[in-house]
Formats: sequence, C-alpha cells, structure tokens
Amino acid sequence: MTTVNDPAVSLPDDEIFAAHEGGKLGLDVTAPLSDARSLSIAYTPGVAQVSRAIADDRTLARRYTWAHRLVAVVSDGTAVLGLGDIGPRAALPVMEGKSALFKRFGGLDSIPLVLDTTDVDEIVETLVRLRPSFGAVNLEDVSAPRCFELERRLIEALDCPVMHDDQHGTAVVLLAALRGAVAATGRTLVDLRVVVSGAGAAGVACANILLAAGVRDVTVLDSRGIVHAGRAGLNPVKAELAQRTNPTGRQGDIGVALRGADVFVGLSCATVAEEHVAAMAPDGIVFALSNPDPEIHPSVAHRYAAVVATGRSDFPNQINNVLAFPGIFRGALDAGATAITENMKLAAADAIAAVAADDLTTERIVPSPFDPRVAPEVAAAVAAAAVADGVADNVVRDS
Amino acid sequence: MTTVNDPAVSLPDDEIFAAHEGGKLGLDVTAPLSDARSLSIAYTPGVAQVSRAIADDRTLARRYTWAHRLVAVVSDGTAVLGLGDIGPRAALPVMEGKSALFKRFGGLDSIPLVLDTTDVDEIVETLVRLRPSFGAVNLEDVSAPRCFELERRLIEALDCPVMHDDQHGTAVVLLAALRGAVAATGRTLVDLRVVVSGAGAAGVACANILLAAGVRDVTVLDSRGIVHAGRAGLNPVKAELAQRTNPTGRQGDIGVALRGADVFVGLSCATVAEEHVAAMAPDGIVFALSNPDPEIHPSVAHRYAAVVATGRSDFPNQINNVLAFPGIFRGALDAGATAITENMKLAAADAIAAVAADDLTTERIVPSPFDPRVAPEVAAAVAAAAVADGVADNVVRDS
Repeated sequence: MTTVNDPAVSLPDDEIFAAHEGGKLGLDVTAPLSDARSLSIAYTPGVAQVSRAIADDRTLARRYTWAHRLVAVVSDGTAVLGLGDIGPRAALPVMEGKSALFKRFGGLDSIPLVLDTTDVDEIVETLVRLRPSFGAVNLEDVSAPRCFELERRLIEALDCPVMHDDQHGTAVVLLAALRGAVAATGRTLVDLRVVVSGAGAAGVACANILLAAGVRDVTVLDSRGIVHAGRAGLNPVKAELAQRTNPTGRQGDIGVALRGADVFVGLSCATVAEEHVAAMAPDGIVFALSNPDPEIHPSVAHRYAAVVATGRSDFPNQINNVLAFPGIFRGALDAGATAITENMKLAAADAIAAVAADDLTTERIVPSPFDPRVAPEVAAAVAAAAVADGVADNVVRDS
Repeated sequence: MTTVNDPAVSLPDDEIFAAHEGGKLGLDVTAPLSDARSLSIAYTPGVAQVSRAIADDRTLARRYTWAHRLVAVVSDGTAVLGLGDIGPRAALPVMEGKSALFKRFGGLDSIPLVLDTTDVDEIVETLVRLRPSFGAVNLEDVSAPRCFELERRLIEALDCPVMHDDQHGTAVVLLAALRGAVAATGRTLVDLRVVVSGAGAAGVACANILLAAGVRDVTVLDSRGIVHAGRAGLNPVKAELAQRTNPTGRQGDIGVALRGADVFVGLSCATVAEEHVAAMAPDGIVFALSNPDPEIHPSVAHRYAAVVATGRSDFPNQINNVLAFPGIFRGALDAGATAITENMKLAAADAIAAVAADDLTTERIVPSPFDPRVAPEVAAAVAAAAVADGVADNVVRDS
C-alpha cells in the first residue's frame, strides 16, 4: 500500500498502530442513567411502554429506536483496499474507519458487521434476518463480480437503502469530478469520448453512471482489453455492459481505446504508457485513480492533459469517496428512502460539482473532503431526488 | 406493565416517550478525523497497515479492533419483559436500554442485534457468520424452552462468552441475595429447603445455581404444580431438572411445596396465597420477583417472613440483574475468556454478596445498583474464576 511517493510513508508505523489500539469506535449512550428514576425510564419498567407502543404500531420503531438512522457497514473482507481477500477480521479496521467517516462527515451512526462467509445467499440471508436492527446497508470491499449480484440481491430483499460504496461512491465522485473538469475546460459532458480502464466494481459503476449522465461514447477495458459484444468468455456483467458501451465497436488494447479519447479513467491498478496518453485528444482529462500508484504519474500526464486527478491526497483533484457516501446515506435516511435510485446518485454528483463550481480551476475540480458544505448539500439533493423518484417515505411505512 | 403500586405510574408517558425519541444510543468515534493527516491514519492509506498486520496474524484483531470488547445484545423478541412475543422491532428499545446499561455500569461497548427469525438453527447460524464482529453474546428476552437450546447451541458454536441474562443474570443476583438473607438471619445456605415457583428461563437457572451453590433441597413448580420425576409430559429441560431437584419426591401444588419451606422464590407471574406463605417455616425468606406485581405483597409476606425481596425499586431488597451482567461480561472480556463457566457465575454472586456484607440488614441483602463497587468487584471475581477454570486466554488465541 505504501510507496516512496505515498503520503503514508510520512506516517510512522508506530503512530498508525497506536491510533488503532483498541479499535476506533465506542458506544455513546444518549439517555441519562444517573439514578433510579432515569434507569426506570430508559429501562424497565418505563421502556415497556415504548415496546408495547411499537408492538401495536411497528412504524413507531422509526421514531423510538436508533435503527432507522443506523447504517450497517457490511463486508466479507474479500476485496479490502488494495489488499485483496484478507478476510473479515483483517477487514474490520477498515469498516471501523468507514463508520468513523459516516459519523464525522454525515453525522450518522453505524455498526460494522464483518461476515465469516463469502456466500452471496448466506450474506443476503444474514442481513434479512438482521433487518430490524438497522436502517441502511453500506456494502464495502466485496470482490467483483460477486459484489454486483450481492448488491442486486440485497436491494431486492431489503426495503431500505443499500449501496456498494466501492461501486457507486466512486462513480458519483467521478461524475462530479468530470463535471468539474468539463466546466473548467469549456467542454460538454455528452460529447466526451470516455475510456474506463477496469471492469471491476468501480469500473462498471463508473461506466454506468456516465451513461446515465448522458455520455454517449464510453469504452471499458478489463485485463484482456476492450470489452466488446463479440468477445468470448465475458461474464454476465461484462456481457451486459458490452451491449451499452463501445458504440463504434472498437477491439483491442488500451492503445486502441485511448487514441483520440477525451477522458481516461483508470481504475485497474495497471499502468498506462505515456505514448497512449499522448495519443489522446488535445487537452484531455486523465483520472488516474489507482491507489497508491496512479496508472500514470500526474506530472507525466500533465504533459498532454488539461486536467489530471488521482485518488491521492498529495496531488490536486483527489477523487475521494468520502465526498459522496456520508451525504448519500444521510439524505436517503433523512427522506426515509426505501432505496437508492440512479437519480439519487446523479443528484449527489451534481451537488458535489455545485460546491466545487464556486471556486473551480483545473487544479480544483472537486471540493476538499473537509469542505463543510459537501455532506449537507449532497444529503439535501439526495433526499429531494428520493422524493421525486417516489421512494421517500418519511412519514410511516410498514418495514 | 404499570399498576397503581408501580413506580412507573409516577413516570408520565410523555416523559417516557420523549426520553426514547430517536433511540438511546449513538456511535462514538475515538480516532481523530480533523484533517487530511488524521484521516489518512484512521482510514486509507494508514489503515491498510493494520489490516495487513491482522491478515498476517489474526490474533492482532483483539488488539486493533473494538470487536474483542464488544457485546452483541441479541434478541428475537419472543419474551420481552412481561410483554411476551412482541417481535424484534418492539424488542429493540429494551436491547438499546441493555446496551446503555452495559456502558453505564460495565464500561462495555455493545450493539443491539434484533433478529427477524425465531428459528434456533437460524439464530445460531447468523451469529456464527457475524462472529468476527463481536467479542461476546448477551442473549435477551428469548422464550423458554427455546432459550435453553439456543444458549447451549451458541456456547457450542462460538468460542466466546455467551450468556442468556434472563437465566443467569437473575440466578446470580438471586444467589447473592440468598447469601445475604442467610447471613442476615443466621442460617446456612446448604440446609435450606427452597421452593422455586416458575420453570421458565429464570426458574430453571435459579434452581441450577442453587444446586451448584450446595443447596440440597430445591423444589421447582410450573403452572401444573411440582416438577417431579413421575410426572407425565415434562419437556426435556424439566425432565432433567426433576432428576436433580425435589429429593423427597413431593407431588402437588404450591401449598404442598411451601409447607415448612425456608425459602420461596417467585418467578412465575402467578400469585401465591397468604395461607401458603403462612405455612412456611418460621422466619422464612420470600423472594416475590414477578414484575410489576410480586407474587405476594411485601407487607403481607412480612407477617410471616424474616426477609422479603422483590424485583421492584420501590421496596427494599430489589433483585436487579444490573448487579450482575455488566460485571460478568466485563470480567469475562477482561480475561479474554472463551466461555462463562458455572464457577464464574458463582464467583459473581459471591462478589455481589461480599459488597452487601459490609452493611447487611434484612432490609438490605443486596447492594444498590448504583453502588460503584459492584461491577468492578464482580468483574475481578469473574476474571479470576475464568483463569482458575482454564477458560481465560488474554494473551493470544486463534479466534
């Protein structure tokens, strides 16, 4: 994960480990328990009144428990950061970190649930059984292509917001950044020719959101080259993607794909040769998002591209999911949404882009993660889109 | 739940509901997330170092996550307080309250998990899958006799402390209180003849802990009368209990059982007639623990008994589980215990009784729930018993 150029190198291991000692989370009790009277309100006998009321009208659970605002941060540990399938125990520090970010940036409570199974049926079944305990599911670090089926199945099975952040959080921020890059360079989004390198969780979701946003020419590559309808052995996700992308039927490698392209989106952990970036259209847009090593060094990309973004905090234009997921879940839960729709994701991207628009340059196409406007603006836009899409239900519902 | 005599009556409903608005819990983040540097320590890229270390040595999960000190408060909502099978959503306010008590009295973090299944196999399976997420299981408000099988199966399946508090928390405090009552009246525990009215979760556990503590003559009754080996139609739990209780082979009703008995333990929600209490041995001990209505009013019981205890805070000698479970789980987790043994429960009872011994009267046979000595003393005694029993493992283990 660390390289010579990585900011983590300046973080001594002992400082990192000390910061994680005992974990990063604790439980906060919001009810006073200072004397016999407060105890008899928060617990027996007083709590029985609340339980009886919910038993009579289960919609009251949304009002009198923490569940309706609680995000389950769920992982099976199969695709953790760049570390791969390291299992649920090793994934837990990341999920605790995610919970910490939900609180810090979205004001949302959450519980990390790491699962000792990688079976999609079993994960779905487990969360269905736990459904009364939480109000939304943030899937995290689940390997592709299982993550696509798992997310789809969970959305079908659960009447609450479900989102695989590695897919859609990345896609939302990418779209926001692309809107910023387009505005900063005087282009129009729909006319771009976009190449997405990587057909894993993030690559597929990025292609999808670009199509949903109106981009007409998106080409996706996996490790074997351009995904096209005639290619043998495509998994179902890629076969489906081939139907909707690559409209001119290109075949071949990244060199073929990038020739004359306006935008490169790297999500593959592979490198891209300078000559291929040089062959892009003039004043191109390069998003080299692999961490910790971008597909091409930003200083090299800048020889050809007008806008360069990475996933790293030590270069300009950091594409960071934390710009999206806290506000998306906050907005969905504020609205009582039963799902996260495509329009809610598009609205989130627009809201992020709108915050950046106030101070837009080619070196600042997205806001800082610490810009306090981001999460509230995203939440408001997402909640409004949930209402517009008819999935908001913040009065009562039979969940 | 409320009656004219219940202290809850002095709690206006609007005050109760206001206190539960939005639930009673929140997440506390113990890692700073104030700037890019602290973000890169708590989350990517820094957290990858921690995840990689745990992937290499999974025992490090105990040191660098919150899981090893986290109690899962688990219920299926089938036997909630005195309300019965009201389901998981209506049970959640109680579980949140339990989590609040764990924090307030034991300094332990916990997460309430309410399950939308009452199938024992499914509950066990669910918690096995979630095992990497927590460090102990407090079962709560699960109906009998399922609770016996569920607890046994979970203990077999999970290498961590598991305790059904309605059984063992009650039993531990009962034993502590009985030790206090015995000391206050100059008796010896082993010579007592004890009658337990109720063969549900608490009744069975109380009978068991009394036997484990050396009481030789324990008689248990269910709604059909005395449990004895010759009775047809006993469920397996009661049939097993019949082998170890009622040594003189009594048969019949509560009147038969109580004649000449030293101790009455009421855990049945039934009433007991004054004439039967009057027929007990002189200077008897009456624990009328049903809530909110004791089996016999304390003022009536006092006409015959030397010591009277209830489950209520508005009479002397409240038998309250909060005296036991925070310290039991705290001690078990402090010791890194893989189980909660009978000796750990007995040690907890002794520790509670020892705190009460400093200021013992027939009106004060147990400490106040707010006595700050209780949980630390219980935790220390439980941890020591775990070490003595060979189930403590606070160095490293392959969990």
